[in-house]
Amino acid sequence: MALQSNAGKLRDVIKVNVDLHCDYRCEDCEKFFECTDDKKWEIYKRRRMAKAHETMSKIKHKIAVLAGKGGVGKSTVTANLATALAMKGRRVCVLDHDFDGPCIPKMFGLLGKRLQIGSNGIVPVEALLGMKVVSTGLIMGQDEILTWFHDMRRSATEEFLAHVDYGEQDYLLVDLPPGTSSDTVNLMQYIPDLAGAVLVTVPSEVSQDVARKAALLCIKAGVKVFGVIENMSGTACPRCGEIFYVLQKGGGEKLAEELGVPFFGAIPLDPRLSECADMGVPFVYKYPDTPVAAAYRSVIDNIEKELGWPVQ
Amino acid sequence: MALQSNAGKLRDVIKVNVDLHCDYRCEDCEKFFECTDDKKWEIYKRRRMAKAHETMSKIKHKIAVLAGKGGVGKSTVTANLATALAMKGRRVCVLDHDFDGPCIPKMFGLLGKRLQIGSNGIVPVEALLGMKVVSTGLIMGQDEILTWFHDMRRSATEEFLAHVDYGEQDYLLVDLPPGTSSDTVNLMQYIPDLAGAVLVTVPSEVSQDVARKAALLCIKAGVKVFGVIENMSGTACPRCGEIFYVLQKGGGEKLAEELGVPFFGAIPLDPRLSECADMGVPFVYKYPDTPVAAAYRSVIDNIEKELGWPVQ
Repeated sequence: MALQSNAGKLRDVIKVNVDLHCDYRCEDCEKFFECTDDKKWEIYKRRRMAKAHETMSKIKHKIAVLAGKGGVGKSTVTANLATALAMKGRRVCVLDHDFDGPCIPKMFGLLGKRLQIGSNGIVPVEALLGMKVVSTGLIMGQDEILTWFHDMRRSATEEFLAHVDYGEQDYLLVDLPPGTSSDTVNLMQYIPDLAGAVLVTVPSEVSQDVARKAALLCIKAGVKVFGVIENMSGTACPRCGEIFYVLQKGGGEKLAEELGVPFFGAIPLDPRLSECADMGVPFVYKYPDTPVAAAYRSVIDNIEKELGWPVQ
Repeated sequence: MALQSNAGKLRDVIKVNVDLHCDYRCEDCEKFFECTDDKKWEIYKRRRMAKAHETMSKIKHKIAVLAGKGGVGKSTVTANLATALAMKGRRVCVLDHDFDGPCIPKMFGLLGKRLQIGSNGIVPVEALLGMKVVSTGLIMGQDEILTWFHDMRRSATEEFLAHVDYGEQDYLLVDLPPGTSSDTVNLMQYIPDLAGAVLVTVPSEVSQDVARKAALLCIKAGVKVFGVIENMSGTACPRCGEIFYVLQKGGGEKLAEELGVPFFGAIPLDPRLSECADMGVPFVYKYPDTPVAAAYRSVIDNIEKELGWPVQ
């Protein structure tokens, strides 16, 4: 009956199935981010993270794209933000951190390509504009499945962060899977100098509620939320031009206000977005002169301003 | 470098980070469904499943709703299928198996309600038409987060299947989270007599590709796929009535054909679906005289025919 718990404040929500003594298995501890024991990072780094830190230190800014909820367009947003950065001349790599349903390879037209082993580790697959892509979708075929259990997921995170030959880069964009548990926490533990996160939601309340949980995890982990993107906002009728809102409207702005972070704008549900994803060409590259592409560029500009980089 | 693996057939895809000796920790084994060792179920049942089997034996038909991908409308489909069954006079319970982003409580208007402990175990929360609902969203508040690590997830699955006082029921509908790993596998291990699964996809290829992985997991686990629902199919312009396809069309039918299972039809993207979810009233209950409601009833009729139940 351990599931019964009392409602409480964020920091008190630790009652479900939790063992309260400390055995210093920090990587598996659900109180990792709350824990004030000084030995925590020291132990953790020594055990697992030294190599990951070395590899990551060559990449200037590491940014996570997350939503908590699935299917709100995290991968589409990641692919388009990365492409918008690359079109601006930045050196960009993309880590698809979704082990069960990796979509990034298809969105970059990389289906069938494979990660290789080189002399300095795993060699990412190159996409348009020199972007470097890493994904489990570049290890396994479309019709292969593998059940990724907990330790395998952490090992994969470790390999993808530590043992990939990204080289010197300006940005790493990480496309996180749905959920606010292992995969997201693993990533935040392995990249403690994450520059920040972009939060994606669709307008509906159901989606906002789950995105809020993701934001709370960021706060708990000390990760800055750069801002909120409302995806799949209004769509225009291709016949009469009427704008209407299939998944309601305003949810992203409301969430941003609540969290006290910038609202990055609403990205309309353009049927060409889904076509582009299926064709393997990022929308911002194929249709640069559209309001959607302009919206993505504006998000990038906001983030770079926030980062104070590149120095003017 | 253990991540490097060769492409291969479904049954050969076991090379990544896998320990090949057997220590009979069957519940954590990624080869659970392939394994032909006779001791497997015996060991597994003795260890963890006896109570779950007893509780589950009182429910005639257990059905999973899955998609692999997030955000394609699994929870909306689950809530509406359950309600359509209850409107037909069936005794129905709903298990929201999404620990990180539970949406079912909100969709049934149960936010703020809490699971209680009774003399026969956890007491589900009652929704409209006498439906019984279990969800982590009925344990924790909307703004609480908890990082659910692997063992906690399995314990929660066990408690939700073994220690809930569902009583005698006709149906249990299980709303699965995105992904094809731990949560889905745990459920399939705990309910080996799952009647079958309803597969949900949106029309886009990206979504089909991930749904196919979920179908392959069903095949591997010996779970029947009842059929495929194409969700978020065409939408009608509220001004001129033009039908158009924001996420493309035909993906569900194509997937059903490929898998050799029935196509249950396309459910249009009606803005009222999202409104209903946010208001906490299932669409089929509020708008019974719509094509969407008829589509849900037809799925139910197909499944009951398939189950040969109720006997005419």
